[in-house]
Amino acid sequence: MAKNRQFLIDHLPKGRLGPEVFTLAEGPMPSPKDGEVLVRTRYISLDAANRAWMWGATYRSAIKAGDVMAGGAMAEVVESKAPGFRPGDLVWGDTGWQDYAALPAKHLEKLGPADPVTHLMSVYGVAGLTAYFGLLECAWPKAGETVVVSAAAGSVGMFVGQIAKIKGCRVIGIAGGEKKCSFLKEKLGFDAAVDYKAGELGKALRAACPEGIDVYFDNVGGDVLEACLFNMKLNGRIACCGAVSQYDGPQPHGPRGVPGLIVTKRLNLKGFVVMDFYDRKEKALADLRGWVESGKLKVYEDIIDGFENLPQALIGLLAGENIGKRMVKVV
Amino acid sequence: MAKNRQFLIDHLPKGRLGPEVFTLAEGPMPSPKDGEVLVRTRYISLDAANRAWMWGATYRSAIKAGDVMAGGAMAEVVESKAPGFRPGDLVWGDTGWQDYAALPAKHLEKLGPADPVTHLMSVYGVAGLTAYFGLLECAWPKAGETVVVSAAAGSVGMFVGQIAKIKGCRVIGIAGGEKKCSFLKEKLGFDAAVDYKAGELGKALRAACPEGIDVYFDNVGGDVLEACLFNMKLNGRIACCGAVSQYDGPQPHGPRGVPGLIVTKRLNLKGFVVMDFYDRKEKALADLRGWVESGKLKVYEDIIDGFENLPQALIGLLAGENIGKRMVKVV
Repeated sequence: MAKNRQFLIDHLPKGRLGPEVFTLAEGPMPSPKDGEVLVRTRYISLDAANRAWMWGATYRSAIKAGDVMAGGAMAEVVESKAPGFRPGDLVWGDTGWQDYAALPAKHLEKLGPADPVTHLMSVYGVAGLTAYFGLLECAWPKAGETVVVSAAAGSVGMFVGQIAKIKGCRVIGIAGGEKKCSFLKEKLGFDAAVDYKAGELGKALRAACPEGIDVYFDNVGGDVLEACLFNMKLNGRIACCGAVSQYDGPQPHGPRGVPGLIVTKRLNLKGFVVMDFYDRKEKALADLRGWVESGKLKVYEDIIDGFENLPQALIGLLAGENIGKRMVKVV
Repeated sequence: MAKNRQFLIDHLPKGRLGPEVFTLAEGPMPSPKDGEVLVRTRYISLDAANRAWMWGATYRSAIKAGDVMAGGAMAEVVESKAPGFRPGDLVWGDTGWQDYAALPAKHLEKLGPADPVTHLMSVYGVAGLTAYFGLLECAWPKAGETVVVSAAAGSVGMFVGQIAKIKGCRVIGIAGGEKKCSFLKEKLGFDAAVDYKAGELGKALRAACPEGIDVYFDNVGGDVLEACLFNMKLNGRIACCGAVSQYDGPQPHGPRGVPGLIVTKRLNLKGFVVMDFYDRKEKALADLRGWVESGKLKVYEDIIDGFENLPQALIGLLAGENIGKRMVKVV
């Protein structure tokens, strides 16, 4: 009989996330009830939000000690007690970090085909849709405008910048380190890249955006958000997508300039969570597919092999190791 | 010959504003050049923004040591070298704190009649229009929603809350002290009032808005903004109008919860400056006039007599002395 490996939360982290937070265990093989589906996880998504969930309830309930670590995954249906799902179907759901999960069918989403199948985890998944809706429906970029995106070499940021280029904008990426900055300019065609680890960010931003920023897509919060606030143009728009700089440490103070700069520069800050836009998902996926197939939108993925590597994959993601969408291949 | 009394800025304040910042002087009688108009100030408006201007350039240039203190006023045309202005016309402009000013006609706005004439300084002036456009065009309140406004007994806040009531909202005002809170409930018909000086604001807000806040009209920034952020409902809207709590002291840090709560609650924060909406001023004034004349919108003004009282009038305003629009009657 198959094993069901699980990573359990031993205790919630107080400071930076370390491997001691997770315990590898073997759980019972779950059995689906009526309306449920038994799935086997294939690729588990690593996301900065995984860490944020440890702080308390967000757009989902908090993670507690003793829980299986939560996480979204692509999984394959093994047994179904719900109409519409059959063995072999590929689905997306919050399986958690385990081999098998029995989940209510209403919490699963059937996935269409894709080649490679991992694109369902990146450009045709949460990352691509987050970039698409966050940029286009929360920040309204116009051709010729200057768009800045942080965590620009990350899973969402790399799509944000490329979509902004497709829309005719001038695009500046903020990322940590020369390697990522070169990647943004040479592989993704960004107009400029700013290394936030290389010196005074505000000064570097002013040099890269001498006329100011029209649109800032914020993945990181904290000091980078503050530096961008001070460099926004009048009537600038900020899409608030996440705050990865704030997740893995003590609780934050907010950026100076709030609300002062919001008022005097007439800024609009809009927070969003991608699920709110899912009624328009098909249109978004059609656009993304068209751009990928025509070569306008490049997809980079960072696939780590082996279930046992999940804790280190998340710890490394929070430290900024990855370029592109990070996931762990389970099987 | 008439005197031209002026309050000059002796030095910019480092901490709280005190009377030593201002020097009473007698300036030359200005002489209008071609295209300019000589005006005599009648009522000078006291605004929290006066203090913010001392920090540096905002939506106007900074105030410097040696300048006549800046400030908006209702003034009467004495002599005109510009078409369209005649002696006796009432105008609005940034005359500064002085008896007479010669100003370019393009910086003056002709004022229609009103009875009492001071309503041109309050409900039909910047305060009324700021409340109208900030609430209706930056925060989109719907009937039945819960609207919170800070500095609720102040010049803008008292109109914000009353307009929200007219639109069918449940309205909670935040103000300092029992006297203002009673005023809001008894005179203005607010549904509840929260005294931010009386104890833990977050707790009091949760009691007054058990289901959370749909719309927050922020006049004050700082801790009050933070407390409201934590009590916003999903998809809440915050109109960022000003940050009076931050003007009269050392430079601030921003509220915790930015951007974290903006993301998870899908909030929208929109900063605005009233002038941006002046293309639609006539419609707004017609609405305001209708509400005032039908008794739905009550107007309270705090008129202090005597030019020499200007410094203390501003210092007191920053300390929260006034109920309703504060102005100094010069003549």
